[in-house]
Amino acid sequence: MWLAKVIVSLKPVVNDPPGITIHGALRTLGFTGVQSVRSGKYFEIRLDADDEAAARQQIDAMCKQLLTNPVIEEYRFTVEHA
Amino acid sequence: MWLAKVIVSLKPVVNDPPGITIHGALRTLGFTGVQSVRSGKYFEIRLDADDEAAARQQIDAMCKQLLTNPVIEEYRFTVEHA
Repeated sequence: MWLAKVIVSLKPVVNDPPGITIHGALRTLGFTGVQSVRSGKYFEIRLDADDEAAARQQIDAMCKQLLTNPVIEEYRFTVEHA
Repeated sequence: MWLAKVIVSLKPVVNDPPGITIHGALRTLGFTGVQSVRSGKYFEIRLDADDEAAARQQIDAMCKQLLTNPVIEEYRFTVEHA
């Protein structure tokens, strides 16, 4: 069993309305040192695979096919034995 | 300037409808080895602070006051010089 931790974030050039809203809210709350906020998604996926390379290959395919929009998002992940 | 990377995830006992839906979609796509999917949120926050301890204290306060719902969510973060 493998545990993959996947982070999906918007490409730096893409506008991020939730991040802008959270930034404003944090400043209103008094966190005036905040310079920027970018929002993204996080997934923990448990899967069976023969070895770590196979697990990584499967997670990469999942990211491309379902978890991300490659036009506006980028992703990175780690895989560990679980 | 400091860069904080914050991961917010549901507590293990909390039901996760998006995760269940993604799990089903992955299996439909042929990823039959997937055992579970848990969804969460991710934030990258750039902030000014005097030192790393001050940055960590601020990020922790932001998590408690705005970024998470402490009843159903848990969080972890890293802070690095940026």
